[in-house]
Amino acid sequence: MKEEETLALLRRVRDGSATPEAAMERMRQQPFEDLGYARVDHHRTLRQGEAEVIYGAGKTTEQIVGITASLHRAGNDNIIITRISTETADALSTHFPLDYDPLSRLGIAWPCEHPMTGDVVVAAAGTSDLPVAQEAIRTARALGSHVTRLTDVGVAGIHRLLSEQSALHHARVVVAVAGMEGALPSVVGGLVSCPVIAVPTSVGYGASFGGLAALLAMLNSCASGISVVNIDNGFGAGFLAHRINQMEGIHK
Amino acid sequence: MKEEETLALLRRVRDGSATPEAAMERMRQQPFEDLGYARVDHHRTLRQGEAEVIYGAGKTTEQIVGITASLHRAGNDNIIITRISTETADALSTHFPLDYDPLSRLGIAWPCEHPMTGDVVVAAAGTSDLPVAQEAIRTARALGSHVTRLTDVGVAGIHRLLSEQSALHHARVVVAVAGMEGALPSVVGGLVSCPVIAVPTSVGYGASFGGLAALLAMLNSCASGISVVNIDNGFGAGFLAHRINQMEGIHK
Amino acid sequence: MKEEETLALLRRVRDGSATPEAAMERMRQQPFEDLGYARVDHHRTLRQGEAEVIYGAGKTTEQIVGITASLHRAGNDNIIITRISTETADALSTHFPLDYDPLSRLGIAWPCEHPMTGDVVVAAAGTSDLPVAQEAIRTARALGSHVTRLTDVGVAGIHRLLSEQSALHHARVVVAVAGMEGALPSVVGGLVSCPVIAVPTSVGYGASFGGLAALLAMLNSCASGISVVNIDNGFGAGFLAHRINQMEGIHK
Amino acid sequence: MKEEETLALLRRVRDGSATPEAAMERMRQQPFEDLGYARVDHHRTLRQGEAEVIYGAGKTTEQIVGITASLHRAGNDNIIITRISTETADALSTHFPLDYDPLSRLGIAWPCEHPMTGDVVVAAAGTSDLPVAQEAIRTARALGSHVTRLTDVGVAGIHRLLSEQSALHHARVVVAVAGMEGALPSVVGGLVSCPVIAVPTSVGYGASFGGLAALLAMLNSCASGISVVNIDNGFGAGFLAHRINQMEGIHK
Amino acid sequence: MKEEETLALLRRVRDGSATPEAAMERMRQQPFEDLGYARVDHHRTLRQGEAEVIYGAGKTTEQIVGITASLHRAGNDNIIITRISTETADALSTHFPLDYDPLSRLGIAWPCEHPMTGDVVVAAAGTSDLPVAQEAIRTARALGSHVTRLTDVGVAGIHRLLSEQSALHHARVVVAVAGMEGALPSVVGGLVSCPVIAVPTSVGYGASFGGLAALLAMLNSCASGISVVNIDNGFGAGFLAHRINQMEGIHK
Amino acid sequence: MKEEETLALLRRVRDGSATPEAAMERMRQQPFEDLGYARVDHHRTLRQGEAEVIYGAGKTTEQIVGITASLHRAGNDNIIITRISTETADALSTHFPLDYDPLSRLGIAWPCEHPMTGDVVVAAAGTSDLPVAQEAIRTARALGSHVTRLTDVGVAGIHRLLSEQSALHHARVVVAVAGMEGALPSVVGGLVSCPVIAVPTSVGYGASFGGLAALLAMLNSCASGISVVNIDNGFGAGFLAHRINQMEGIHK
Amino acid sequence: MKEEETLALLRRVRDGSATPEAAMERMRQQPFEDLGYARVDHHRTLRQGEAEVIYGAGKTTEQIVGITASLHRAGNDNIIITRISTETADALSTHFPLDYDPLSRLGIAWPCEHPMTGDVVVAAAGTSDLPVAQEAIRTARALGSHVTRLTDVGVAGIHRLLSEQSALHHARVVVAVAGMEGALPSVVGGLVSCPVIAVPTSVGYGASFGGLAALLAMLNSCASGISVVNIDNGFGAGFLAHRINQMEGIHK
Amino acid sequence: MKEEETLALLRRVRDGSATPEAAMERMRQQPFEDLGYARVDHHRTLRQGEAEVIYGAGKTTEQIVGITASLHRAGNDNIIITRISTETADALSTHFPLDYDPLSRLGIAWPCEHPMTGDVVVAAAGTSDLPVAQEAIRTARALGSHVTRLTDVGVAGIHRLLSEQSALHHARVVVAVAGMEGALPSVVGGLVSCPVIAVPTSVGYGASFGGLAALLAMLNSCASGISVVNIDNGFGAGFLAHRINQMEGIHK
Repeated sequence: MKEEETLALLRRVRDGSATPEAAMERMRQQPFEDLGYARVDHHRTLRQGEAEVIYGAGKTTEQIVGITASLHRAGNDNIIITRISTETADALSTHFPLDYDPLSRLGIAWPCEHPMTGDVVVAAAGTSDLPVAQEAIRTARALGSHVTRLTDVGVAGIHRLLSEQSALHHARVVVAVAGMEGALPSVVGGLVSCPVIAVPTSVGYGASFGGLAALLAMLNSCASGISVVNIDNGFGAGFLAHRINQMEGIHK
Repeated sequence: MKEEETLALLRRVRDGSATPEAAMERMRQQPFEDLGYARVDHHRTLRQGEAEVIYGAGKTTEQIVGITASLHRAGNDNIIITRISTETADALSTHFPLDYDPLSRLGIAWPCEHPMTGDVVVAAAGTSDLPVAQEAIRTARALGSHVTRLTDVGVAGIHRLLSEQSALHHARVVVAVAGMEGALPSVVGGLVSCPVIAVPTSVGYGASFGGLAALLAMLNSCASGISVVNIDNGFGAGFLAHRINQMEGIHK
Repeated sequence: MKEEETLALLRRVRDGSATPEAAMERMRQQPFEDLGYARVDHHRTLRQGEAEVIYGAGKTTEQIVGITASLHRAGNDNIIITRISTETADALSTHFPLDYDPLSRLGIAWPCEHPMTGDVVVAAAGTSDLPVAQEAIRTARALGSHVTRLTDVGVAGIHRLLSEQSALHHARVVVAVAGMEGALPSVVGGLVSCPVIAVPTSVGYGASFGGLAALLAMLNSCASGISVVNIDNGFGAGFLAHRINQMEGIHK
Repeated sequence: MKEEETLALLRRVRDGSATPEAAMERMRQQPFEDLGYARVDHHRTLRQGEAEVIYGAGKTTEQIVGITASLHRAGNDNIIITRISTETADALSTHFPLDYDPLSRLGIAWPCEHPMTGDVVVAAAGTSDLPVAQEAIRTARALGSHVTRLTDVGVAGIHRLLSEQSALHHARVVVAVAGMEGALPSVVGGLVSCPVIAVPTSVGYGASFGGLAALLAMLNSCASGISVVNIDNGFGAGFLAHRINQMEGIHK
Repeated sequence: MKEEETLALLRRVRDGSATPEAAMERMRQQPFEDLGYARVDHHRTLRQGEAEVIYGAGKTTEQIVGITASLHRAGNDNIIITRISTETADALSTHFPLDYDPLSRLGIAWPCEHPMTGDVVVAAAGTSDLPVAQEAIRTARALGSHVTRLTDVGVAGIHRLLSEQSALHHARVVVAVAGMEGALPSVVGGLVSCPVIAVPTSVGYGASFGGLAALLAMLNSCASGISVVNIDNGFGAGFLAHRINQMEGIHK
Repeated sequence: MKEEETLALLRRVRDGSATPEAAMERMRQQPFEDLGYARVDHHRTLRQGEAEVIYGAGKTTEQIVGITASLHRAGNDNIIITRISTETADALSTHFPLDYDPLSRLGIAWPCEHPMTGDVVVAAAGTSDLPVAQEAIRTARALGSHVTRLTDVGVAGIHRLLSEQSALHHARVVVAVAGMEGALPSVVGGLVSCPVIAVPTSVGYGASFGGLAALLAMLNSCASGISVVNIDNGFGAGFLAHRINQMEGIHK
Repeated sequence: MKEEETLALLRRVRDGSATPEAAMERMRQQPFEDLGYARVDHHRTLRQGEAEVIYGAGKTTEQIVGITASLHRAGNDNIIITRISTETADALSTHFPLDYDPLSRLGIAWPCEHPMTGDVVVAAAGTSDLPVAQEAIRTARALGSHVTRLTDVGVAGIHRLLSEQSALHHARVVVAVAGMEGALPSVVGGLVSCPVIAVPTSVGYGASFGGLAALLAMLNSCASGISVVNIDNGFGAGFLAHRINQMEGIHK
Repeated sequence: MKEEETLALLRRVRDGSATPEAAMERMRQQPFEDLGYARVDHHRTLRQGEAEVIYGAGKTTEQIVGITASLHRAGNDNIIITRISTETADALSTHFPLDYDPLSRLGIAWPCEHPMTGDVVVAAAGTSDLPVAQEAIRTARALGSHVTRLTDVGVAGIHRLLSEQSALHHARVVVAVAGMEGALPSVVGGLVSCPVIAVPTSVGYGASFGGLAALLAMLNSCASGISVVNIDNGFGAGFLAHRINQMEGIHK
């Protein structure tokens, strides 16, 4: 409840158009729906500008169906459901329309068309990094950002990246996805003047330690303007990229 | 060298107003000055919008003086020098004007006034996190961002943070600085709709392992819209916050 | 053997009503039953107030049946068996009555009604943390504690937790269960004046490192009155919560 | 602000004895004092039953003096200040009465007599663990708990511990402090029926890794009723022990 | 080749009963058989007193059959083959007599009776530690040591261990096997005056990190006379226990 | 594009035999083919002397077929494809000739005869290390190096290694492959005067931590002339060994 | 108290030559002296064959003096005090005779001559490992073992070790001390038929991680008959070596 | 002793020009000098082509003087002494001529002129990496290699590296030195066709963990032809680079 609303409510109490008890009740009301196993936050769209996202891993089909229904009842569409298998997607599809992509394992419930604006570049170092990159891309697009994808631009063949400098220079924000040594964000960070979101992936073996090597490399990047999300967190990168991409200019 | 410049140069070769050898020389020229111990990148201002920053740790006073002079010759002021001791700052002050702050250990060479615009909020969880927060603040201000500081708003006394919701809601970007369990960014991330940059600090002891606990917590935040920089990297957070803060709106 | 018993025995030796050899034998007797693969501690109920609990992981069905029988022979009921699969539970059910719950994977052999007193609150940060929370809840209830469950009260939507302050304030002890960044105990710790038991879970991916991130965060909590158990150790938290919940007041 | 207070305030608004603006102001007031570098929480005593504690590490003498004065103005005494050197203690003593102990590095500002009730046992495995044990002891005593200390009862000479079973059996809560292999809590946990708080210390070398070995051992204890605090966190253990010790019985 | 053999050979060269070339050939001969995928060391029995042991993990049935045959040809029996599945054991049994035990996953090829002497005690902390303990027991027995097994003597019920002090006092060497917190060797080490070999097991979960917790605890034991082998290395402990058990007295 | 080519192109522009636009186009052309999911680098053979290698893990059969075809179109044969299963190899064989070896899991597409020169020794410490050793061997041979294999020469039977000193002394470069304690490279490094490439393997259990023990041992080798590749990276070692083996002498 | 003593005491109670109360008192007496900060175990000599050893690190001079005096009063000499600085040794020397050696930082209080028997070999890989080796040597000698020292026999110059095979073959037990890659015990383990105690040292830098590399290597040794003590634990190795060295033969 | 020497010796025994006992003695002789604290390997020059190098850390000035004298007596000059302070260097200079450089902390005893051939390129990512790079450079030059140094060519300003492609293409071997994210070797590895030796440095802070981040990145490089040495091991890289640089061509 915003301060103005509170003040308005208080004035209505003074005016007698609301009883203290009713005002108390109103103030006690929570902006979420409690499903027993989950509390769905219906005010997030107002408060934060995007609807709630469903982290699918570790949830049953029934739970996902319930949360999706609750969000849809509240007027949301393009509801993002991450990390679900093809089997789960098939099961969900019997309950509501779902746009599912097995590469990114990301589904969009109640999908609908909307304009995509701005310019997010998602660059993947290697072919094996594509699932994570794709999760970022689909997330950003579902939220309304225009996305350009660059694939196989790892630093061990630097000319492949340098040939895409034009795309990089037009970006409002770059998502750089890499496993193994995770060097891509550092090189990208030196080429562009926009924010760079680094996504380490678990691609690799041995001393990659499940993506730890790439994560540490990215955290220690000597380029400026870079920040890092969790290993394989394509969703988080895409979500943040959208937030940055959609920023308005400073009001003078 | 941009494509247009290259094309213009090629046309001058065709026209005979430039020899192939001179064109070759022009194309070979590098946009940096080699000091022997460092290569100062003079085109970064053009390429990336901000001047080079000097990472002071591990550099001698002579090296810092040399790099600063090179940057100043190229027309830069408000040159940021990070991680220098009071002794080094005193020594540097004999060579050029330096605005130094011992809390953040950050100096600004050839300081000059400039307008500060937008709205960056830097929130520090505890009193001990202030040096890192201050490094972020001074960096963002030196680059031209308006900054609001919130101190001692750690989550173990959640009402202290909630009382600052108004400041948080006005921010274009929030920098959340915390050591120990590093929980501040998660709570902030749930309250705001702008990008949040999380900065783990090495404040703590025992199983904090030099900031590792806070770093891991922030990488695993269940809030959306958060990304992380290296432990104690106030500079990096301030730099990135400025980049995001200064973004223009999407051109329609 | 308590000191009084020993003194009584010695007096019987002096009186000739017990031979030194018989006394020796008596003193040598151990308060447990040796099954070959396990030593069942029958004096624990006397010594510690609760019956032995069977850690089911890594034990064969035959071993669990044997230990349960030994405990039941000694007069115990409501015997807790942790970490067993549905298959094992089915097999055990053919040997004795078992109240099994697949979510928590915890069975209660020879279940019987008993009053539940006091007030333990078990709060789970996310839907995926429910199995661990449920293990804690079922353990505490089997031992005789009244338990209130709060679900999906993670800190990234802080209002969901704050709306449950009333329940928290009535608790004699709180169990706070969270994976990912593990921040819930810190916020809870700042809201209540009773002991808080933090349970990190392995929920998460990437830099969660199987619950390490949450574990470290909880160990480094800047709130006071918090202690931590092993990752996913819902049983341990429920057991300790019961012990604290059932404490008597100080005798004046 | 409690619900009743809010309701009362609302009724005063209705009655006209308070304007909506004044009520708004009242509701906006925070229960803490902002010193610029710290926010001192004056409602904690009401909310949680104990006054705020000052974590001394990383704070300047000026900051500690300021926070202590703020707390004292609000009516607190026996204010605990942890992790301060003898030099800092000497400096603080010129501003207010301070009961300082160099072994535990813990000071008590504005010390005053109060009754000590209940029974907390603090057991230290080795002589080198005494500083941490002493921090726990002084904390619990300052808060009002009666404490018994057992020293040098490490498990490698198990008879030393067994000879203290009487003290252990009378305890309402036990704090077990150990470095190196950290085995003491497991053995204690099997002997008592009250909660056990395990405190790993950084005593050791080599593969102790600064207390990590003891920490992991304690988290993996096969005894029930044990929980763990951070390495060397004697304060945290003493604080929690006091909370458990002072519990009232269940109201029937 | 021992020094005496070399000297004898040299004397035969001087005497002309051996040509230099033949002596060269003799000296070049290696005391092992090269099977292509393995070099079987036939002199180890002479050099070290025990025959070669076959580490079964990662070897094909064909390779194990070949190595066993080579060892048997050289006159060995009671050949130990570790870490093989029941399937592999069945396959091996078609090639040579094999005494296999599925608990320890250890087979003995060409088993034969021999006296067992001395006194090795193998103590297992919990029921789940039995597979590793059994590997140690079977190894020591195959090599010729008499072994006593103590099960379920973990430190959280210290009386179970203390009731076995007689067995411990008669041991020439003790193998202490424990997972989780790995405290058993420390307590045992304080009770006996013989060498103690500590074996951490991977029994546990969460912060046990696959046996790391127990390993670190054992390495940091404050008891004297203890050394440690790799996690789950029952074979290594049994082998070393046999070596120590079979030691002769000092020749005066 | 080499400098001479650029100069030649510029001269053709001056001469009018090429338009500025055509020159621009020529300079913009990249030396790779973009398949959508991969950018195949056709100039690598020219630039680096060996054709591109396909890292098979994480790629679909279709992707591998596409990349192989692209490389073959560009004139390459003996194309190395690493880390593929027998199933994948069978599928690939329907598209092009493939020389596959299940031990090393390495396939060679469009295999053809070529001379093998120089002398690379690949030494494997144990039988279980053979898959990694074989990957190195097949890689080096496919690139044109003559390779000698030594098996089961681990340091715990040092005479097995010493008996192969002759082979070691003739090597131009040695690849030393070992798991567990990873000591082989240190001993080899003291015996030879050529470069030694150390390859840690994941062979082992417990505190081997997936090859970490061997990796750290090799990085800390006290012998000179040793460098290390990633755990299980037989390909990398074989590739580098070939590069060193094929070096020409210094031109005087 | 041994069983026979107990039985004898019980018989004296029956005979009336001891009252039950006196017997009780006798049984309650502890075999240690409580100094407040330490419990000195006077029965250890009887129970374990060697007197208590004082771990000097983290103890004050006063504490060491007190413990030493207590042990000396109980009839001990050759009391070992580990890890003390030259300054501490000087201070201690004013209270009792002390044989101190700065290399090993180990002092022997109330030193006296005794025969040294058996044969312990202590082998140090490098010159920098000598302090740890010397701690082992002085410990074993103080306890009564004859010790042979081999220095600078690291595996990177394997001939240096092989030239000492004669000494190794005569050993009853070998202590192998090494930092860096820690390979020495593996090679020694393959050469001898007696127990080998491996001591990792913190000698090294970078990826040695304070001795972790050597520790892991030794735990993963593929040689049989090896066990490991903590990093830099020369005392522990020397103590255990003495125990093994002094073993009697099996009584037939 | 080489095989030919042995055969010759055996023939002299047959001829009677040597007794068996003398031959035995000759064969027993070791090719090193035992100084008590070190065994100086005089045959290494013959065996491996370079003289012994003295690792200065952890050695006393006396020990270094002794080892240097022993090596010099055996005919060596240009003896490399690593990791010594300016103080130690000053002390050593009073015993023999020493060419010392404080940046690399590397001294060369008995320095003498020699030709430098081939082409080693040592590239340092940042100014702070220069000490390690310089250690590599001085080592390679002392052994006889011609070295080219590239400084401040880190990947965050990729044009600085690309401008040095000519130097890189002429190299016979490249040493790439980098701290922080350690990405330099990956980019270099994609540009050159010669072996690349990667040297991680401890330059950085926070999640660099003393160079671990750079080490892991380099081990996981997706470029081929790269191997890695220990953190800060400039000497090792320089030594290996020299070995590769000085290779002769394959004899046809």
